[in-house]
Amino acid sequence: MRAAIFNGPGKIDLEDRPKPVVKDPTDAVVRVVLACVCGSDLWWYRGISDLAHGTVGHEFIGVVDEVGDAVQDLAVGDFVIAPFSWSDGTCRNCRAGFHTACDHGGFFGQGGQDDGGQAEYVRVPQAAGTLVKVPGDDLSDDVMADLLALTDVMSTGYHAAVSAGVTEGMTVAVVGDGAVGLSGVLSAKLLGAARVIVLGSTHEDRHALAREWGADEIITVRGDEAVAALKDLTDGNGADAVLECVGTKDSTETCFAIAAAGAIVGRVGVPHDVTIDGEATFFRNIGMRGGPAPARHYQPQLMRAVLDGEIHPGKVFDLVTDLDHIADAYAAMDERRAIKALIKISER
Amino acid sequence: MRAAIFNGPGKIDLEDRPKPVVKDPTDAVVRVVLACVCGSDLWWYRGISDLAHGTVGHEFIGVVDEVGDAVQDLAVGDFVIAPFSWSDGTCRNCRAGFHTACDHGGFFGQGGQDDGGQAEYVRVPQAAGTLVKVPGDDLSDDVMADLLALTDVMSTGYHAAVSAGVTEGMTVAVVGDGAVGLSGVLSAKLLGAARVIVLGSTHEDRHALAREWGADEIITVRGDEAVAALKDLTDGNGADAVLECVGTKDSTETCFAIAAAGAIVGRVGVPHDVTIDGEATFFRNIGMRGGPAPARHYQPQLMRAVLDGEIHPGKVFDLVTDLDHIADAYAAMDERRAIKALIKISER
Repeated sequence: MRAAIFNGPGKIDLEDRPKPVVKDPTDAVVRVVLACVCGSDLWWYRGISDLAHGTVGHEFIGVVDEVGDAVQDLAVGDFVIAPFSWSDGTCRNCRAGFHTACDHGGFFGQGGQDDGGQAEYVRVPQAAGTLVKVPGDDLSDDVMADLLALTDVMSTGYHAAVSAGVTEGMTVAVVGDGAVGLSGVLSAKLLGAARVIVLGSTHEDRHALAREWGADEIITVRGDEAVAALKDLTDGNGADAVLECVGTKDSTETCFAIAAAGAIVGRVGVPHDVTIDGEATFFRNIGMRGGPAPARHYQPQLMRAVLDGEIHPGKVFDLVTDLDHIADAYAAMDERRAIKALIKISER
Repeated sequence: MRAAIFNGPGKIDLEDRPKPVVKDPTDAVVRVVLACVCGSDLWWYRGISDLAHGTVGHEFIGVVDEVGDAVQDLAVGDFVIAPFSWSDGTCRNCRAGFHTACDHGGFFGQGGQDDGGQAEYVRVPQAAGTLVKVPGDDLSDDVMADLLALTDVMSTGYHAAVSAGVTEGMTVAVVGDGAVGLSGVLSAKLLGAARVIVLGSTHEDRHALAREWGADEIITVRGDEAVAALKDLTDGNGADAVLECVGTKDSTETCFAIAAAGAIVGRVGVPHDVTIDGEATFFRNIGMRGGPAPARHYQPQLMRAVLDGEIHPGKVFDLVTDLDHIADAYAAMDERRAIKALIKISER
């Protein structure tokens, strides 16, 4: 089969690999229909973080091609959504709703010899606890894109909003207007935010989607200027909840600085060189939560919202291409020519 | 009137001060009936943190002696509980339940010329938003002690448990077995904890009260050994919620190390030299919340629990003395001969 392979910073190549098969009785093999490229893939694509040579991609939806003997409730031919990590669904951490810390879990597409989602087939460990079956046969391209967004980006934006404790009537700040930040805007509105303020880039295409999804104001300055601008917009109080959707030292500091007393910073941007001041946060009761999103935990309810037409998270994809052009997709996202790239791999 | 005055580390003296009067129409003056000494007072008593020469004490209950013209719903003769900070009850932060960040608030007994609670009288700014009237006339000494505990220590322990997100059935770790930690044990049980593990000292008197209030296990080793001991007790998972009731760098690190995936560290120990690793906490979705307890927010419900006989937080007082012996009370707490000292100042 064909698979995208990481051959060093800036180098993504399409290579032939053996088609995966069921190894453990709890495995399934999925034929990938749609995949995408994640903002977090850019960390190692840009050489900022390390990744072993090998397979990549952790976002995919597809059709079950083979199932192990121990996998109940899934059959060949089922159309499924995968979260970006596998999980047994039964350990203490899964039962607590934190599937990304599963005792028998792992993450797709981390280089090396394991399977990644930017490929024709993927072996899925712990398939019964991991894959979410999609009901119905007649799904439009738009709905398919919406479902693809649930594999990571929308679930991650939703986790930011849940972690930040967004409830009805709040003024919510979203730091970052990449695909995750935009999904955070949609999620904050879904959870009842009365007002959403985005701290983002100067990219007009991102602003347009942010506004379509419910952003009321967009702040494009950075650092102290951004903090002052947000305080001006909130009578000096700061935001009732803050979504950290970037992960840098600067963005994290901004999040804590714009949080109102008692607010929680919901973090989903993978942190790089981040430490948090234990004293400044304490005296105003500023909290933090978050981490790798338990996408599997949110997928059933978000899938229902997609199938009911309540949300359209797939709008975050503004570049559609195929596996032959996967390298172009990375380049377009790296150069910020695209918010997020959808990769068509096979027909359902 | 007589008031305890801080004259430098280790030096608490009883001095004469002018009896306070109403200055602003939103003030009341309270004749203090009972006061106490706080663990946080020991930071400056020991010279670890700074405090200006002057009045001290932020925990008191008493009788309203004078009210300003703008103070509604309070009258001379009312018996009241004070939180350790004053607050207007109407600003955004008070409405959000974070009265210690009130726009017009402040903290009692911070040295200098303002009034402290370890004195015969106290001027209370923002009295209508601050003081909680106690119903009924016939209160036993034990109930009076229970109400005194609500001024800070019990409300602070409760804030730790609320901030840590304690809910029904959780395994909760309480780090610290001082008066606040012990109140945290009681609070965790009140919120439904199935199992409470205390990480504390080797003081048997503290263990006895911890067990009486619901602690199942007590770990007396420190650092890595304590982390290993707690992991052993929880099948390697860590605690579902962690209460930080100390505030040192070491205790805070222990809290994050023993938190299970997705758990929140509820912090109420005033932090000294604490920074939090943004990456280690992220990957297991460990959160933190907390800060100075909004005692005023919790007092109505905790007062109800006291008057109904549901909780007896006053058991934390194991030394009873009077204003003449206030210096002895500080010394006894400093030398850990007492968990917490109650100071009788006047008759109700």
